[in-house]
Amino acid sequence: MKESTIRRLLEQVAAGEITPEDAFESIRQLPFEDIGFAKIDHHRALRCGVPEVILCRGKTPEQVAAIAERILAAGSSLLATRAEPDHFEAVRAICPEAEYRPVARCVTVRREEPVQVGNVLVVTAGTGDLPVAEEAVTTAEMLGAHVELIGDVGVAGLHRLLAFREDLARANVLVVVAGMEGALASVIGGLVAKPIIAVPTSVGYGASFAGIAPLLSMLNSCAAGVAVVNIDNGFGAGYVAALINGMAVAGQAQG
Amino acid sequence: MKESTIRRLLEQVAAGEITPEDAFESIRQLPFEDIGFAKIDHHRALRCGVPEVILCRGKTPEQVAAIAERILAAGSSLLATRAEPDHFEAVRAICPEAEYRPVARCVTVRREEPVQVGNVLVVTAGTGDLPVAEEAVTTAEMLGAHVELIGDVGVAGLHRLLAFREDLARANVLVVVAGMEGALASVIGGLVAKPIIAVPTSVGYGASFAGIAPLLSMLNSCAAGVAVVNIDNGFGAGYVAALINGMAVAGQAQG
Amino acid sequence: MKESTIRRLLEQVAAGEITPEDAFESIRQLPFEDIGFAKIDHHRALRCGVPEVILCRGKTPEQVAAIAERILAAGSSLLATRAEPDHFEAVRAICPEAEYRPVARCVTVRREEPVQVGNVLVVTAGTGDLPVAEEAVTTAEMLGAHVELIGDVGVAGLHRLLAFREDLARANVLVVVAGMEGALASVIGGLVAKPIIAVPTSVGYGASFAGIAPLLSMLNSCAAGVAVVNIDNGFGAGYVAALINGMAVAGQAQG
Amino acid sequence: MKESTIRRLLEQVAAGEITPEDAFESIRQLPFEDIGFAKIDHHRALRCGVPEVILCRGKTPEQVAAIAERILAAGSSLLATRAEPDHFEAVRAICPEAEYRPVARCVTVRREEPVQVGNVLVVTAGTGDLPVAEEAVTTAEMLGAHVELIGDVGVAGLHRLLAFREDLARANVLVVVAGMEGALASVIGGLVAKPIIAVPTSVGYGASFAGIAPLLSMLNSCAAGVAVVNIDNGFGAGYVAALINGMAVAGQAQG
Amino acid sequence: MKESTIRRLLEQVAAGEITPEDAFESIRQLPFEDIGFAKIDHHRALRCGVPEVILCRGKTPEQVAAIAERILAAGSSLLATRAEPDHFEAVRAICPEAEYRPVARCVTVRREEPVQVGNVLVVTAGTGDLPVAEEAVTTAEMLGAHVELIGDVGVAGLHRLLAFREDLARANVLVVVAGMEGALASVIGGLVAKPIIAVPTSVGYGASFAGIAPLLSMLNSCAAGVAVVNIDNGFGAGYVAALINGMAVAGQAQG
Amino acid sequence: MKESTIRRLLEQVAAGEITPEDAFESIRQLPFEDIGFAKIDHHRALRCGVPEVILCRGKTPEQVAAIAERILAAGSSLLATRAEPDHFEAVRAICPEAEYRPVARCVTVRREEPVQVGNVLVVTAGTGDLPVAEEAVTTAEMLGAHVELIGDVGVAGLHRLLAFREDLARANVLVVVAGMEGALASVIGGLVAKPIIAVPTSVGYGASFAGIAPLLSMLNSCAAGVAVVNIDNGFGAGYVAALINGMAVAGQAQG
Amino acid sequence: MKESTIRRLLEQVAAGEITPEDAFESIRQLPFEDIGFAKIDHHRALRCGVPEVILCRGKTPEQVAAIAERILAAGSSLLATRAEPDHFEAVRAICPEAEYRPVARCVTVRREEPVQVGNVLVVTAGTGDLPVAEEAVTTAEMLGAHVELIGDVGVAGLHRLLAFREDLARANVLVVVAGMEGALASVIGGLVAKPIIAVPTSVGYGASFAGIAPLLSMLNSCAAGVAVVNIDNGFGAGYVAALINGMAVAGQAQG
Amino acid sequence: MKESTIRRLLEQVAAGEITPEDAFESIRQLPFEDIGFAKIDHHRALRCGVPEVILCRGKTPEQVAAIAERILAAGSSLLATRAEPDHFEAVRAICPEAEYRPVARCVTVRREEPVQVGNVLVVTAGTGDLPVAEEAVTTAEMLGAHVELIGDVGVAGLHRLLAFREDLARANVLVVVAGMEGALASVIGGLVAKPIIAVPTSVGYGASFAGIAPLLSMLNSCAAGVAVVNIDNGFGAGYVAALINGMAVAGQAQG
Repeated sequence: MKESTIRRLLEQVAAGEITPEDAFESIRQLPFEDIGFAKIDHHRALRCGVPEVILCRGKTPEQVAAIAERILAAGSSLLATRAEPDHFEAVRAICPEAEYRPVARCVTVRREEPVQVGNVLVVTAGTGDLPVAEEAVTTAEMLGAHVELIGDVGVAGLHRLLAFREDLARANVLVVVAGMEGALASVIGGLVAKPIIAVPTSVGYGASFAGIAPLLSMLNSCAAGVAVVNIDNGFGAGYVAALINGMAVAGQAQG
Repeated sequence: MKESTIRRLLEQVAAGEITPEDAFESIRQLPFEDIGFAKIDHHRALRCGVPEVILCRGKTPEQVAAIAERILAAGSSLLATRAEPDHFEAVRAICPEAEYRPVARCVTVRREEPVQVGNVLVVTAGTGDLPVAEEAVTTAEMLGAHVELIGDVGVAGLHRLLAFREDLARANVLVVVAGMEGALASVIGGLVAKPIIAVPTSVGYGASFAGIAPLLSMLNSCAAGVAVVNIDNGFGAGYVAALINGMAVAGQAQG
Repeated sequence: MKESTIRRLLEQVAAGEITPEDAFESIRQLPFEDIGFAKIDHHRALRCGVPEVILCRGKTPEQVAAIAERILAAGSSLLATRAEPDHFEAVRAICPEAEYRPVARCVTVRREEPVQVGNVLVVTAGTGDLPVAEEAVTTAEMLGAHVELIGDVGVAGLHRLLAFREDLARANVLVVVAGMEGALASVIGGLVAKPIIAVPTSVGYGASFAGIAPLLSMLNSCAAGVAVVNIDNGFGAGYVAALINGMAVAGQAQG
Repeated sequence: MKESTIRRLLEQVAAGEITPEDAFESIRQLPFEDIGFAKIDHHRALRCGVPEVILCRGKTPEQVAAIAERILAAGSSLLATRAEPDHFEAVRAICPEAEYRPVARCVTVRREEPVQVGNVLVVTAGTGDLPVAEEAVTTAEMLGAHVELIGDVGVAGLHRLLAFREDLARANVLVVVAGMEGALASVIGGLVAKPIIAVPTSVGYGASFAGIAPLLSMLNSCAAGVAVVNIDNGFGAGYVAALINGMAVAGQAQG
Repeated sequence: MKESTIRRLLEQVAAGEITPEDAFESIRQLPFEDIGFAKIDHHRALRCGVPEVILCRGKTPEQVAAIAERILAAGSSLLATRAEPDHFEAVRAICPEAEYRPVARCVTVRREEPVQVGNVLVVTAGTGDLPVAEEAVTTAEMLGAHVELIGDVGVAGLHRLLAFREDLARANVLVVVAGMEGALASVIGGLVAKPIIAVPTSVGYGASFAGIAPLLSMLNSCAAGVAVVNIDNGFGAGYVAALINGMAVAGQAQG
Repeated sequence: MKESTIRRLLEQVAAGEITPEDAFESIRQLPFEDIGFAKIDHHRALRCGVPEVILCRGKTPEQVAAIAERILAAGSSLLATRAEPDHFEAVRAICPEAEYRPVARCVTVRREEPVQVGNVLVVTAGTGDLPVAEEAVTTAEMLGAHVELIGDVGVAGLHRLLAFREDLARANVLVVVAGMEGALASVIGGLVAKPIIAVPTSVGYGASFAGIAPLLSMLNSCAAGVAVVNIDNGFGAGYVAALINGMAVAGQAQG
Repeated sequence: MKESTIRRLLEQVAAGEITPEDAFESIRQLPFEDIGFAKIDHHRALRCGVPEVILCRGKTPEQVAAIAERILAAGSSLLATRAEPDHFEAVRAICPEAEYRPVARCVTVRREEPVQVGNVLVVTAGTGDLPVAEEAVTTAEMLGAHVELIGDVGVAGLHRLLAFREDLARANVLVVVAGMEGALASVIGGLVAKPIIAVPTSVGYGASFAGIAPLLSMLNSCAAGVAVVNIDNGFGAGYVAALINGMAVAGQAQG
Repeated sequence: MKESTIRRLLEQVAAGEITPEDAFESIRQLPFEDIGFAKIDHHRALRCGVPEVILCRGKTPEQVAAIAERILAAGSSLLATRAEPDHFEAVRAICPEAEYRPVARCVTVRREEPVQVGNVLVVTAGTGDLPVAEEAVTTAEMLGAHVELIGDVGVAGLHRLLAFREDLARANVLVVVAGMEGALASVIGGLVAKPIIAVPTSVGYGASFAGIAPLLSMLNSCAAGVAVVNIDNGFGAGYVAALINGMAVAGQAQG
């Protein structure tokens, strides 16, 4: 994109249609919008195919609403993560069709009928891992993926997991969400040869050290095919899973 | 696979072709081979589409050769990682066509002409990251991927990286290998919307703490789309990248 | 259990009593109950001889009550740990005979007159370790053990401990609960040749690092016979102690 | 300063103007003021060219006001950092012209028209880093620097940063404030050959470990020219940047 | 033991058979033997039913041989762990029937025909865990247990483990030895309701941090019934497993 | 004490004044008092010359009052540390002459006119270190020491410390209380050859990690003569300083 | 630099002197040199005013020599750090005038008579800190600074430091190199108001944790004006100090 | 000392015996000796009553010998710690009466017949702790203390320790040296009311983390009276114990 823009500018300069000075300014004027406390990266949708996402944590409801307003004004869909109810209220005040998923802590606005294709499977070890899993579900859906969720199939009752073996095999990519010792990622990694995005959670106490135990566990998985994101980072897992799913979708359609 | 085996067994029982007792034994006799100190998972190729890989570290040359012999006897290709020269010698003694890549520290035997398709791009921040990067290259190639490598484009000289922007955009999946502060993964994550498998390396000293600094850096990437494997785990990164690439290959062929 | 079920199914298939397809489905339908946010492992009682235990931490009172209802409906006794008063109220609303032990933070329902046999001895270093110790007591009792508790016998006043030497010698298994430096486990380990389950607690401040100091202390015990569970994990200690006690009970009855 | 005082005292002793005993007492009576809970270092302005700064954290409003009163009585300007609103109220009660910057959490009293010269550039990766950045801005301004601030130019959208490349090049010294993975310091370090004072922030979650991730990142910067202060230490960064700027100002004036 | 000795002494004093002063000395003369650099605890066999074990690590061959000589002179069997070949040579020089198990790194002298009863099952995740597992086997055997060993059944190939399900169910107590992510302990804990002594090993690299990853994993096991010993502590695991097995043996004999 | 008691008992047995059985019971009945949740070590005063001290943290006001009542009933003075106001109220209800030092967070009851001899000097780096310092002062005074306190003489203004050099030289033992980087202990250790008990405090933020920075600093002091207690452990420092002072007092009286 | 190049290119396009396509290629062809395993950043001298420095650690002598050859071919001076003798030999083989400083572990080639101006003062706490200090000295000298070194003035003997007070006051910037507890940085920070670049070293043992203790100490300095580089990073400290000194030099020349 | 020197100088100035300028120089010329790589603190003996001690670790034999020569030339006794045999050889070459204690790794030269008074008791938990204990013994003896050593009385065999209870009670100060879990310090702290200097050692493996486990254990001792020095720091413990003993000696002589 940017490359072709530069080429066209240069051709316009060569054709005498614009001055060198104007061309230079255009090259410098990259498409982000500066609203003081934030610089909104509208260019991201062009560059990455995905609109900028708002991480609400650490921002005031007013800041979130102001950023959301600019993203929506640009015609993009909206995804705001780690949103508390007051963040949602602030966004809804400027965009009544905004929706809130309280377990996922996400605010969403969908600009068009969502096309959810492919198969991202999100799996959790326990009930307490659900908020992180739902954040992954929401994120992947907003990026166009069809997503399924299987909860509470941790390794303490292995038969619960094995009962879903066909579901595991059918997915293009798996997001495995687990706290405590995080063994679920390794076990699933041994069952299927699909990319697995593992999300350690801060579920647990004592020597789980707020997610360090499952983080280390997942990084040291004896099964290959497992890559890891930050503790409790359902957004990150859903994002990368959706990218992978997008490729697989195209591939499977072909066969 | 296993499911159809079970179904067929049950049908044979129903047809009176085999006794229930024999069927039960067959179900229990899963296809691994027990050679005393190791249980070789021939089933893995069936289950995961990928033959078992030998991690040489912590095994004697004799142990590695014995495991390699059984894998080769089953007709599989061979990949042995973290191989020292004496591991290679032991394997070559039983299989003269074995090859050794000293920088990657890998022993390989390819059973058929390799089909290397798609586009896995491995990028390193510095010269010292090459051994880990080469392990990723070898692994992804053994799993059927076409792999390219761009070295020494760390963020201290950003223009070196930007010069390869088209290469970044062309890849299906990127493996980013970096030690020290590991910033390269975030920077590339901001440039392209492709799945990025980040590999922190133990390159560095002092407060890099043998790879903890880039590991944390990569886990906290402010750019989405980055998932992380263990420190120095070129094998793991190459493996998951090859899985992702396989899907994308099918997709791009279609277009 | 499961093995005999499979054998019987196969025999039924051989006898033409059920079709292969139905047998396959039965093998897949393992006995857990899916209530959406949780998958209750009724099979556990069969598999492990112990009903599933609810960890309330991270679950809403409604979730806990819903899970408890299904466990109770299956005729099991109930143990819910880390229960806050509102968890208890929610369970009592569906089961009036539920009891709450506030120090242990446990909700219990006993389906039959408890048979508490053998001798599990729980010992604490200080008064602040009592909640963890009581959790261990409750757990072991719910699993059928006779339990005794000796509190506040830390090594700063060794004669307090030595006064209970006969009690230590009489136990089948000891649970030693200690925070701060956790030296009590080593000292008791040097006094008796019984299995000792050590529980580090988060009692202390500063360089106790919320239980890391006694955890490391107990893992490095210079006395043999000491195994360790997670920080503050009274439940885990009581559970494994009850398993050991069960064996010893059978043994001592014989003599 | 002190040296000349001692010399003069010795000359006065030699001249018989003061007794040896009085001279000795004068040497011992160094210029700090003891108000019980604090010893105010009025000597600091002489010794370091900078008045003592009050860190409000851990002090009561009364303590802060009492210290401020003594500093102001000595004719100095005042800077109080990590000030909560009640700290400000206590200072304003004794000095109505005191000002409060709520984002920076600083109370200031300027005794003379501020001369803000040179060019300290403070750059932040994200919106959440603003409080720390504003503390740096306030501190450097109170020490006489002209300061500019560019916010929200983290590496996830590199073009946002590159748009300000001229601003980076114009500064005498840069303060780079970033949480999460802290990559911004390395990237800027690769773009300009100016001293960079990097401030890791506690912005982030999970494996950012309250600032450890960016701290390690910045300490391991692959770009030279980066030095680091404590997590969230905007004051420290602004202070050292102002010292460096002071030198550069003198230098550039000469050209 | 000691109690009855004291009682008898007091009765002898009452009977005038010995003086109070001599009785006092006898109480003080506890049965250990001081050989300068070590104090050998012969009393341990009386107190704990188990002779003192020599940890060779950190002791010279001469020191080990001198301690071994005193233990053997007391008629005890001998177990020396972490023994290098030169430790063994030094012991064999004073006791020709000493045996050396090089993988387990143990020197043993058995005074009587070993009675190995019950069923301790040692399970390892990988080939690299064997030295630690063999140390556990040797220790438990020296304490009178019948021990079986199943190696290389890590969770990356779950069917390898499930093939041994009957063996797991038959054991009185299990020792689970695993490095990397240590998930095997949780998985086995979900399969059987037996006491599980988990041993994390330093097998692995990078973020396994020399055994911290499996240590944390095992401490946070989502399956109950798991207690943990120090990293690589095969001796400690074998010791506590033998204690538990001893009780179970008595119990099962009864049935 | 205990030894002479045993000797006397044995002589009484020899004289036929008491039976062996009674003597044995007396030996077992060591002087602690069991009040259920606590075992009060009255023996401590005999054994250590110091009454038992109550750590209120983690105990309810009722528990503290109950323990205090038994200690006071035994005629001892009382020291309760980490006491919140409600702990004090509970103690005052049973002992109206109890006093509360809110900064030190200590409750005290003195049974006799305190004899405060010798010279313990407590020095703090900053105002925020005062609560810990006052806990040390109170503890050492309750153990009979004369204590002086110099506050806010951290190394950022070295002349403040040097002004008190004579005071440093006059003390028998110094307690140095410092947070942040804890350099004060090393500096004082280089100035005087007296035992220095260093107390790291949790004063600071960011990379002080709640006291780890000064703890490590003090443990690595380049000046000899420095020993360290737990973070924020003013009690422990005051206690050991009082023990040392007691010896020095006797020594100086002699000269 | 780059900006003016782009402007000129655009003017040449406007003037029809070069085609748009050629201009585009020129923009892309940034001045680095790709020699396979490394990409040499000749542009750095233009961009940063400082030639690229070779970190020898992790590179073979052949790699170092090949990179050095290209840098020297470009007419730059050469600095190679962490150079072992065989690195030096390889460089000397291609450039006989190369010099080696064994304590600093640096290889240097100076292209012109060095102009060493200003005043960088490097101070060490102990003799063991010298290698790191000498690396800083060499680096700063290669960047044009006049450097002085004062060694072994740690705080355990404060008078040694105070004797050099005038030297401290005269410097433009100070590099403070210290291991163990690293208190020297804080103490000097309290004495002078100059920018201080603190370098923690791995000198020490035990709880210095290979430099973590002085690193934390320096980050938490209670004296303002201190910024920190990586453990043992003499190069980084010398580099940033030289940048600061360069500004001060210009400033002082003016007066 | 220094104070009186200054007073006398001032009086000489007042009397016209020396000029102010000369007096100033004298004040500045503090008695240390600069030999290039080291600044020998002869003043320390005056200031602290103890000559400077050489830490050999990190110094070459030549450096150690050069420093030793200057100390000996000043008439002091010599103590060099962490001395390898080649350090000793270098010292013996310049001072034939130098002695070497290989277990303690110390080189000593005693200038006068040692007066070893008082009672420092060094106690070790295990045989492996002896080198650290012997360093403490040597250090305390060189500072004039009478020292006794009791080895191998760890808490795994408590009766071994209790047998030495009288010895514990007789000491003025105890040095407790222990690795693994370090429980010995707490147990002794509960038995006697004497100052206890605890030395954690790096003896152990796995989760002892090279001494972190006993370090934390000792810092969290539930018994009061325990202060801690760095891991393996026998020198530091012996030093502070000798200071305390010196006071007690004076005190006991008086009685």
